[in-house]
Amino acid sequence: MSKIILGIDPGIADTGFGVIEFFSHNKLACLDYGSIQTSAGVDLDKRLLTLSLQLKKIISKYKPEVLAIEELFFNKNIKTALTVAQARGVVMLSAAENNLEIKSYTPLQIKQSVSCYGQAKKIQVQKMVKLILNLESLPKPDDAADALAAAICSSASLKF
Amino acid sequence: MSKIILGIDPGIADTGFGVIEFFSHNKLACLDYGSIQTSAGVDLDKRLLTLSLQLKKIISKYKPEVLAIEELFFNKNIKTALTVAQARGVVMLSAAENNLEIKSYTPLQIKQSVSCYGQAKKIQVQKMVKLILNLESLPKPDDAADALAAAICSSASLKF
Repeated sequence: MSKIILGIDPGIADTGFGVIEFFSHNKLACLDYGSIQTSAGVDLDKRLLTLSLQLKKIISKYKPEVLAIEELFFNKNIKTALTVAQARGVVMLSAAENNLEIKSYTPLQIKQSVSCYGQAKKIQVQKMVKLILNLESLPKPDDAADALAAAICSSASLKF
Repeated sequence: MSKIILGIDPGIADTGFGVIEFFSHNKLACLDYGSIQTSAGVDLDKRLLTLSLQLKKIISKYKPEVLAIEELFFNKNIKTALTVAQARGVVMLSAAENNLEIKSYTPLQIKQSVSCYGQAKKIQVQKMVKLILNLESLPKPDDAADALAAAICSSASLKF
């Protein structure tokens, strides 16, 4: 038995995604990861549409049951935070449309789950994700690594 | 000749909407207004799905060409602002999916367009919206009045 988890690190220029399979004997396998990118010169609504369409493709390809995502937090730049929040709304809508179970975590919880250390740096998180998922190289870009880390974090609470 | 404008005041518990028809001889007519409501006890993703489905119904009924919406602004409560932003992302996505032209305004611009006064109070805006659209009573709830005001604001810049 296994469950497919889609981890998402939302953003407007880059939304990281990571798809993992979590087996009932606690093994994890990485199925895919990457970044959905939209161009800065394009209007926000069209960028959100691109994000929505690409998410639909990923969900339709891997048929995840769970969406793992970071909670929104106040960021130094309020304008950036409000734009990321709009992208997160689109991600949450895609999850609801496909009936995914949503698992939402703080950045601290995600870092702790992969590194046992809430203040871990990006490179440490990437190295741990690589180790845990048995990847051949560090997962790139950063958003994809963060999305995989969110997916790994959620696996700890899944029941079969 | 005329254009249908959908004004939206996004929120998570209440999203105000107002549909107006703008004629080439500058006359405005109110076709509909109200509020899309979601329950506080329901998960965010399901609330966003309700918002998306209700918006689809309104867009499919009135076939607007323009979406008029407030720009996001920093609000005293950052948690509220980030939640409203997620709802706004869903509204923007609906607009892009239906190929609506988006007109985005600051609260100041919207107030000025209906009342010639950027610091107008809610009740003043409501009274002006009632007058401009020839309504029989004050548009309620507040979000619906704000949505109609956004739609009226956008009509000033429309070309035929």
